[in-house]
Amino acid sequence: MKNFIKPVRTLVFDVFGTVVDWRTPIIEAVTAAANETAAEGDWSVLGPQFAADWKAAYRPAMERVNEGGSWINVDAIMRQRLDEIAGQYGLDGLSAARLDTLNEAWSLARPWPDSVSGLSKLHEQFVLATLSNCTFHWLVAMAKAGGLPFDAIMTSEQARRYKPAPETYEMAITLLGIDASSLMMVACHNYDLAAAQSHGMKTAFLPRQENGSGQTTDQEAEGPWDVVATDIEDLAVRLGQ
Amino acid sequence: MKNFIKPVRTLVFDVFGTVVDWRTPIIEAVTAAANETAAEGDWSVLGPQFAADWKAAYRPAMERVNEGGSWINVDAIMRQRLDEIAGQYGLDGLSAARLDTLNEAWSLARPWPDSVSGLSKLHEQFVLATLSNCTFHWLVAMAKAGGLPFDAIMTSEQARRYKPAPETYEMAITLLGIDASSLMMVACHNYDLAAAQSHGMKTAFLPRQENGSGQTTDQEAEGPWDVVATDIEDLAVRLGQ
Repeated sequence: MKNFIKPVRTLVFDVFGTVVDWRTPIIEAVTAAANETAAEGDWSVLGPQFAADWKAAYRPAMERVNEGGSWINVDAIMRQRLDEIAGQYGLDGLSAARLDTLNEAWSLARPWPDSVSGLSKLHEQFVLATLSNCTFHWLVAMAKAGGLPFDAIMTSEQARRYKPAPETYEMAITLLGIDASSLMMVACHNYDLAAAQSHGMKTAFLPRQENGSGQTTDQEAEGPWDVVATDIEDLAVRLGQ
Repeated sequence: MKNFIKPVRTLVFDVFGTVVDWRTPIIEAVTAAANETAAEGDWSVLGPQFAADWKAAYRPAMERVNEGGSWINVDAIMRQRLDEIAGQYGLDGLSAARLDTLNEAWSLARPWPDSVSGLSKLHEQFVLATLSNCTFHWLVAMAKAGGLPFDAIMTSEQARRYKPAPETYEMAITLLGIDASSLMMVACHNYDLAAAQSHGMKTAFLPRQENGSGQTTDQEAEGPWDVVATDIEDLAVRLGQ
């Protein structure tokens, strides 16, 4: 193991994008719902477009919380957005209960092909925790269904501020009970690593195409991160596993 | 599975006493420390006495928090108590750093013989979470070292109130995102189950002799609990595993 990594005892993972593919299950779920209600259009095109449009509510809603707005969970953010956009896609025939079920598709996010094997290797040597903006119970469901060997689930919901708000990283450092420099944040989002680094945490970047093959953002390290890996299996190799 | 258990999807475990034996590692650790500093006396007698004396600080300190005192973690509670009683047992020759290490023995609590096998069976059908008064990072360490298959670690530290304060159960119900009646609290302490039941949770009792063979309290169900089991393996059988 490289010297500068040696003090790291705990890896803290972003989840949506970094560990799991949220987009494929969302496209599948909305396409199934569109078929049920005989929504018009080519859903091989509309499905990906709907996924992007749905996800677009995520960051602005979190920013409202971080700017002092009242707390709202990601599941409620996504459910509200669904009401806003369903009509535009001809999904207004779906009942509220059916839209509730569709919303749960966010909890069906699936591990990338390297995630379970990579995490399992890392689990032998490190404590593995999440630090995610996702709703706690969705993350628990996702980790259990996907067989993700996390030792602890931590989410922004517990700090009532979303990453990159300082409260969330501070909560993780406090709960894990060790010096920030013994924690390494792993993420496919440069902004998350910049915030973690500002709190004294080590950082590891890996690129993902969570938004599909056309994604151009976050395809490379944009800061002085301690490790840059190609995926979680590669991260395990770089951390000496 | 019995009908009244059917809606239960998530089991929430007390840990110290219920899942792990904290007392044996504490006796071992303090006896080792006493030998190091050549403390006088018969440590086959003094070890168990010290363990009880050390643990005695636990409940009063938590009650002070619940009565509105400022928050203090269990690790700090136990460390302060160690300073109070070390001299009485001839351990005042130990350095502060050595006492810090001794204090960490609380994180070495070990699964009872039925815990890992019982939890592993339950894990196939239920989400398994902790709801413990123990410090978060100690619990994470304990679960990892002991191979306890918890899907989520929740502690009083995250609610900043100790069980049986309502805030702690309310936090668990909120984070787990389901109706309280779909949660079952599992504990070897009747007071914990009484509180959980008052929040609408299902309850399962199992007796432990966490305080040693002379223990007379909490040896039987003292309330209308939904399940009474002999241990966690038996609980798995009773819940249909």
